[in-house]
Amino acid sequence: MYDLIIIGGGPAGYRAAELAAGAGLKTLLFEKRALGGVCLNEGCIPSKALLYSAKLYDYAKGGAAAYGVTCQNPILDYAAAVKRKDKVVQTLTAGIEASLKKAGVEIAREHAVVGRDAPGTPSAGIAGRDGNGAPGSSRPTGFTVNGRQARNLLLCTGSEPIIPPFCRGELRSPARVMTSRDILALTEVPETLDILGGGVIGLEMASLFNSAGSKVTVYEMTDKIAGPLDREISAMLQKVYEKKGVTFRLNTRLEAITGPTLVSAGRKPVTAGLEALGLYTENGAIVTDEQMKTNIPNVYAAGDVNGQSMLAHTAYREAEVAVNTIVHAAGANSVRPQTDRMDYSAIPSVIYTNPEAAAIGETLETAQAKGFSSARETKLPMLYSGRFLAENERGEGLCKLVWHDNRLIGAHLLGTPASEVISTLSAILYNEMDIERIQKIIFPHPTVAEIVKEAVFHA
Amino acid sequence: MYDLIIIGGGPAGYRAAELAAGAGLKTLLFEKRALGGVCLNEGCIPSKALLYSAKLYDYAKGGAAAYGVTCQNPILDYAAAVKRKDKVVQTLTAGIEASLKKAGVEIAREHAVVGRDAPGTPSAGIAGRDGNGAPGSSRPTGFTVNGRQARNLLLCTGSEPIIPPFCRGELRSPARVMTSRDILALTEVPETLDILGGGVIGLEMASLFNSAGSKVTVYEMTDKIAGPLDREISAMLQKVYEKKGVTFRLNTRLEAITGPTLVSAGRKPVTAGLEALGLYTENGAIVTDEQMKTNIPNVYAAGDVNGQSMLAHTAYREAEVAVNTIVHAAGANSVRPQTDRMDYSAIPSVIYTNPEAAAIGETLETAQAKGFSSARETKLPMLYSGRFLAENERGEGLCKLVWHDNRLIGAHLLGTPASEVISTLSAILYNEMDIERIQKIIFPHPTVAEIVKEAVFHA
Repeated sequence: MYDLIIIGGGPAGYRAAELAAGAGLKTLLFEKRALGGVCLNEGCIPSKALLYSAKLYDYAKGGAAAYGVTCQNPILDYAAAVKRKDKVVQTLTAGIEASLKKAGVEIAREHAVVGRDAPGTPSAGIAGRDGNGAPGSSRPTGFTVNGRQARNLLLCTGSEPIIPPFCRGELRSPARVMTSRDILALTEVPETLDILGGGVIGLEMASLFNSAGSKVTVYEMTDKIAGPLDREISAMLQKVYEKKGVTFRLNTRLEAITGPTLVSAGRKPVTAGLEALGLYTENGAIVTDEQMKTNIPNVYAAGDVNGQSMLAHTAYREAEVAVNTIVHAAGANSVRPQTDRMDYSAIPSVIYTNPEAAAIGETLETAQAKGFSSARETKLPMLYSGRFLAENERGEGLCKLVWHDNRLIGAHLLGTPASEVISTLSAILYNEMDIERIQKIIFPHPTVAEIVKEAVFHA
Repeated sequence: MYDLIIIGGGPAGYRAAELAAGAGLKTLLFEKRALGGVCLNEGCIPSKALLYSAKLYDYAKGGAAAYGVTCQNPILDYAAAVKRKDKVVQTLTAGIEASLKKAGVEIAREHAVVGRDAPGTPSAGIAGRDGNGAPGSSRPTGFTVNGRQARNLLLCTGSEPIIPPFCRGELRSPARVMTSRDILALTEVPETLDILGGGVIGLEMASLFNSAGSKVTVYEMTDKIAGPLDREISAMLQKVYEKKGVTFRLNTRLEAITGPTLVSAGRKPVTAGLEALGLYTENGAIVTDEQMKTNIPNVYAAGDVNGQSMLAHTAYREAEVAVNTIVHAAGANSVRPQTDRMDYSAIPSVIYTNPEAAAIGETLETAQAKGFSSARETKLPMLYSGRFLAENERGEGLCKLVWHDNRLIGAHLLGTPASEVISTLSAILYNEMDIERIQKIIFPHPTVAEIVKEAVFHA
């Protein structure tokens, strides 16, 4: 009998497993593919490795000339860049495996199927809120997964790409219709690339393959790229990429495949193998509360499968909350005995284009929609940062801050390294700081992060 | 009669001037050279512009090959890089001038000399604490600077390089003995470069000219480079630069000049022109309290001249405190009416080498010296950050956190972009956060900043 069985070894699953085992829980982790999940193996990490190669290629192709550095015959050996990317992924995967083993986590490399009843215990499940849960019965004392029993279950089964119906037949020929997994496995640069969906994945791949030499067209159903990113910053980013040669077709549905095409039209939760639990779901996502509890007692879910934000760093935090809840309920050997709760109000997001974009909290638009009638926005071009100017010749950039009664409730950045700067804003929003207090944080000079101080100074 | 005369247009002076004028004070700023001071014109900003050119040159010379990017005949056109650097500086200087004029600041481009008495007022000054102040008399109602009168004085006269006696004769030949100002004005790369002093300026120039092609030797009097930087991180940084071909002579005094030599042996406050005030000084620095008051009523000092930390971002914050104190005392038109106080406990510092180093707060060594007997240190290699691994082939790096009773009291980083990551730690230290609360900050994945979360997770 395990204290905890975790299904899925992505960011939520591996973080939870290490934490649970470290807290003394006997923990078993199921992962049918590679540890690290989509994020590490076919998402965030491989894309960042390749994007960095592309960035250096941009400099070699002439981008460095403005800084006094030139060279001839620039070559991007794409296959070599991919090989290096694979090595980076393998290093990190091996690191996770080592950490898990060191913490005492058992790992089962199997597709997990949850059995309806644990032997000798009553049927699991309480009534689901919309009736799709199994009929309620007494509190279960255990679960069975591929023949192993556990007192608690944590579901971290992740998500998979949404494939529009007209693309499904084409998927058999992955050189033509590709998911993010397929495109990151390419070893040659396609001459043309159509991208279905102008969200984060679509834009990062547009950036990568545009630099690498493809003729890229992005098709986006809505009237803007970059999903919920601030409208002005989205438009600036689009303009930058138009200048670089990417074509954008907004308000457009791609309806026929004519060449190599990336399908990046969103992701949906994966719940295969969990059917017997009778979980309450909404739009295919497992419904969880702020302690990551599902409708079934002792069954928790974290990461993409609950459809809350589908970001790896959200998954980490949800995993921590889930384990802290389980440890708290167990009451013994608790390293973090307090009650923990998930807060979705200060989750940063990043688009690793060049320039990078990053955001956290409310835009003026969302704040007003929530009825914050006194919400206001201040903005400052990134060129007010001396370091940004020193390192970004002709660089576009903007810092927007959203305020409500002098409290910072949102921040939106365009300009590298927005990805690294946004963490400071994450710490600021977490601490619910107002103008007076933010003013007193000392930002080192000269940094791009300083733009936050400048924007507050000019607020 | 001005409400405020500010002497010196560096970071402290220009920040104070804009803030004071914005708060309604009639403000006059004296600057005899260029607005922006040493930092902008001959320090932080020009060095960062040139260091970025050098970084791109390192990639072109072969550093990019590990990422699949190659090119031939890499050239660093150093004169072009310097020209670009000058343009960056001019852009920022013009920006400051525009901001000051917009805020209504008057600017006098003169060397300021403070007169002993304001006409019609009693002699300024109270007794200095060590007797070097002028004899006390009643509270002055004004000061005279180059014939202009003011109710308040803010001294932001900055600092200048310390030149050891044996170098002074050589200074007449600036191609041989150079200050940081001289070296940043070079338009050719010297074949050899001796650097006297292995502190921040010495190391940044070692980095720049080593990349640009000079044979660099750093002479350091003490047993370690990088001044107060954590000993382990200093040693790692030294090793990285030894591999790159820089020679370090520790515990060594350079005693004769044999070729082009940068003197970066520290800086000292500049107080010329202020003699008549009878200011209390210590080791040449004007003594200020936590409200930036000097021993003379209505005379304040901010920036390098008070010798507290000699960093531009400290100067900014001191300037804010000084102006807030003056505005508070004036009582009228106050935009920030609360009492403000300077806190030196959470000031980050950065060395812009490649890799960068950054630090804030206590090291284990300083914490123990202060009697924090339960202080402890946790550390994690930077390679635990997936993004760091993706962007730093064979990159050295370390994150060290120093704790006291579960509260974070120091952080020390080696690894680019430590400069940008340290701001998050600045926000964390400002908010006096403990492990439990830091755990709940959501850092975006994948970022280098995430190393903080990982280090806390493994603390």
